[in-house]
Amino acid sequence: MCGGSGTRVWPESRESLPKQFISLLGSRSTFQLTLENIDDPLFEAPIIISNQDYRFLASEQAKEVGCAARVVLEPTRRDSAPAVAVGAELAAEIAPDTIVAIFAADHVVKNRAAFLDCCREAAAAAATGYIVTLGVKPTAPATGYGYIRTGKPVLADGTVLKAEAFVEKPDAETAARYVADGYLWNAGNFIFRADVMQAELRRHAPLVLDAAAEALAKARKDLEFLLLDKDAFSRAPKISIDYAVMEHTDKAAVVPADIGWSDVGTWAAVDELSPHDSDGNSIRGHGIALDAKNVHIRSDEHLTTVVGVDNVVVVTTQDAVLVLDRAHGDKVKQLVDRLKAENRREALEHKRSYRPWGYYQSIDNGPRYQVKRIVVKPGAQLSLQKHFHRAEHWVVVRGTAEVTRNTEIVQVHENESIYLPIGAIHRLANPGKIDLELIEVQTGSYLGEDDIVRLEDVYNRV
Amino acid sequence: MCGGSGTRVWPESRESLPKQFISLLGSRSTFQLTLENIDDPLFEAPIIISNQDYRFLASEQAKEVGCAARVVLEPTRRDSAPAVAVGAELAAEIAPDTIVAIFAADHVVKNRAAFLDCCREAAAAAATGYIVTLGVKPTAPATGYGYIRTGKPVLADGTVLKAEAFVEKPDAETAARYVADGYLWNAGNFIFRADVMQAELRRHAPLVLDAAAEALAKARKDLEFLLLDKDAFSRAPKISIDYAVMEHTDKAAVVPADIGWSDVGTWAAVDELSPHDSDGNSIRGHGIALDAKNVHIRSDEHLTTVVGVDNVVVVTTQDAVLVLDRAHGDKVKQLVDRLKAENRREALEHKRSYRPWGYYQSIDNGPRYQVKRIVVKPGAQLSLQKHFHRAEHWVVVRGTAEVTRNTEIVQVHENESIYLPIGAIHRLANPGKIDLELIEVQTGSYLGEDDIVRLEDVYNRV
Repeated sequence: MCGGSGTRVWPESRESLPKQFISLLGSRSTFQLTLENIDDPLFEAPIIISNQDYRFLASEQAKEVGCAARVVLEPTRRDSAPAVAVGAELAAEIAPDTIVAIFAADHVVKNRAAFLDCCREAAAAAATGYIVTLGVKPTAPATGYGYIRTGKPVLADGTVLKAEAFVEKPDAETAARYVADGYLWNAGNFIFRADVMQAELRRHAPLVLDAAAEALAKARKDLEFLLLDKDAFSRAPKISIDYAVMEHTDKAAVVPADIGWSDVGTWAAVDELSPHDSDGNSIRGHGIALDAKNVHIRSDEHLTTVVGVDNVVVVTTQDAVLVLDRAHGDKVKQLVDRLKAENRREALEHKRSYRPWGYYQSIDNGPRYQVKRIVVKPGAQLSLQKHFHRAEHWVVVRGTAEVTRNTEIVQVHENESIYLPIGAIHRLANPGKIDLELIEVQTGSYLGEDDIVRLEDVYNRV
Repeated sequence: MCGGSGTRVWPESRESLPKQFISLLGSRSTFQLTLENIDDPLFEAPIIISNQDYRFLASEQAKEVGCAARVVLEPTRRDSAPAVAVGAELAAEIAPDTIVAIFAADHVVKNRAAFLDCCREAAAAAATGYIVTLGVKPTAPATGYGYIRTGKPVLADGTVLKAEAFVEKPDAETAARYVADGYLWNAGNFIFRADVMQAELRRHAPLVLDAAAEALAKARKDLEFLLLDKDAFSRAPKISIDYAVMEHTDKAAVVPADIGWSDVGTWAAVDELSPHDSDGNSIRGHGIALDAKNVHIRSDEHLTTVVGVDNVVVVTTQDAVLVLDRAHGDKVKQLVDRLKAENRREALEHKRSYRPWGYYQSIDNGPRYQVKRIVVKPGAQLSLQKHFHRAEHWVVVRGTAEVTRNTEIVQVHENESIYLPIGAIHRLANPGKIDLELIEVQTGSYLGEDDIVRLEDVYNRV
């Protein structure tokens, strides 16, 4: 499952490029790390369930780690229960007793061997009819997670326990009691037999199951993707699998998991997983801390300096800066809500926008012009398009462009330029073996992204 | 005097565009505010003494506030005594008893009427032979300023007092005692008769006076500027007027000045002079403070957010971010020293570079290309030049360019472009009535600013 939007790690995570797809830690995204963790004979090739907005991101990042996954697209956001239902339905097509494991794509599991052991044990219990969740042994009385009260072992020779109760995020005092009483964190991963989940959904959340089944029956192929039917899927209630099933079913079980798990839910959690110097500072990118302790600095391009301040997180992106007290990580969501209410672009979008053919990035703009860097992958091409309000100048700075302009096709090489007048029907393609990089200067009275008429598109975006 | 470099308000103030020339407060620079304060019949047209690096900045900013000043350029940095000596020499050319007032260009005086009164009283005392300094009534036992111990009135009917002693920056305890004993802050402004200062320099710092006199005698006109002779001026010791004269002379006097003075020396001082909301937050530009108190946010373009942190200053520029505890303002100098030691461009230069003809700003760069926005003022022109290693594409996005390219002269209008191959002799001029704005895409194997051969230049930079 990789459809979430991860607002608490703004400004790096934004709706257009959410947490699970960015390399919060190291060079891989948590989505990719998750795929790598399940690259084991224990699992069949995975099915990725994502929002359709992320289809190219998901497919590309999966390919990058050599994962041949089917990608199923949700046409609208419906929380986890409908996604789990789709997973159960798809698995049931193979065989009713197929064992399904559902993993969130925005968590980190550092101890892969222990993780696989847990999955193996969970699968054994699932085969006997249990819906097994991974229960993480608390490292602190956290108030940010739901907890699971455990019962007796469900199998004679296993470590999987009955899940007696799923309880909601507690206050600090209750959390301390839970930890003392041996409760486990609900890490939101589930392992079950397809037919068992179908039956439990039928019993506790029939609307979810029906909507998922219909959305799947009416789904259509779109390029390499399977797009769920929008009308049907929209009828599914917006509900988590915990609320829909786990809190009601008598088949819930839990495998205590000591697997180095983190939901990387806040900047403090990211910091905990990062390397630190002797002052407790963690710096990624161009950062300097002077007379500062326990600061976390992240910056790709901007020199980011902290002087005399302790316990702050400073995140600098190309268009936004966040200075956050480590203890107030939850308030970032509130900040993003405020930015959304103020219709600020930075709430949702980055300066760089990824597209199936590569990316573009706004690098400058003025009253009647805008400058972009455009990078096209080898073999890729943009749609055949035209604009009503802007002319474009393209200067190729790397690689070779094949430009369709009205009736002609022109090769434009490094250090050459081409002009596209207002209204010209044009297409940009990279016929070469290396990335094509060009600088686009747009001029005109209206420069919005929506001034585009797509006449043909290999990515079906017409 | 406006030759300083103001490192404690980095990243806005940098050697290439120092504190006195940036609009730290409101829309005027402190240099301009100083010129406006002395725009009164009490004063003749001022003489600006600046470092030659700042000649166009000083001259332009003076013109912007309608000030017809002579600009004298120091060819090298020598602290304040040589500048004061030059001022005394220049004034003595008019008449030996000309009264000279020396003001620092990087201070703020909010109460102009009181300031002018002080100057008037100081001038009266100066006429009788005193060297009068403005002594600011302390508002706190600051440790960042020198203090002045006051004595008896020097004139029967005036408020000007004998300056009994100039004492160096004290520790906190000593500062408290000074304040209790009625000492005044040494604000570094001086009013004196030219011949008196000459005599005192002759007595206490003859090397300074000789070097200044010779540098002036051998000075040459350069455009509208008077450039002091470098060899001669370099012979002046690097010394402040306080050390050179004020601490030794028996002619020192002080006028107690309650004039709303600040040296705007740290970000905390900038904050004190800025408007605040009810949480004590001061925000300039795109800033948001959430659950934060007493924060100072400054940002031109980047959205800069502070969550849950109190008492910090956050300054975002186009290439650098500073997060500073208000109480540690003095450490910014240390930070900048470190950046300089690491040869970081951000220590000295902004992304935008001002030139006599306008400015350019780097907006993107890659391995073999660089993109700049270039703005040329109406009527201005760049030098006739060529490059050995780069070709340039210019796309005009506003106004009209007149481009010399080898033997031809071409008009390039809005939404038109022109190509300048490697080695082409070229010049860019703005023949129009509005700013010319263009996007320059450079491509080549070396893109340093020093790959420029200037063949002709109206600003004498050949």
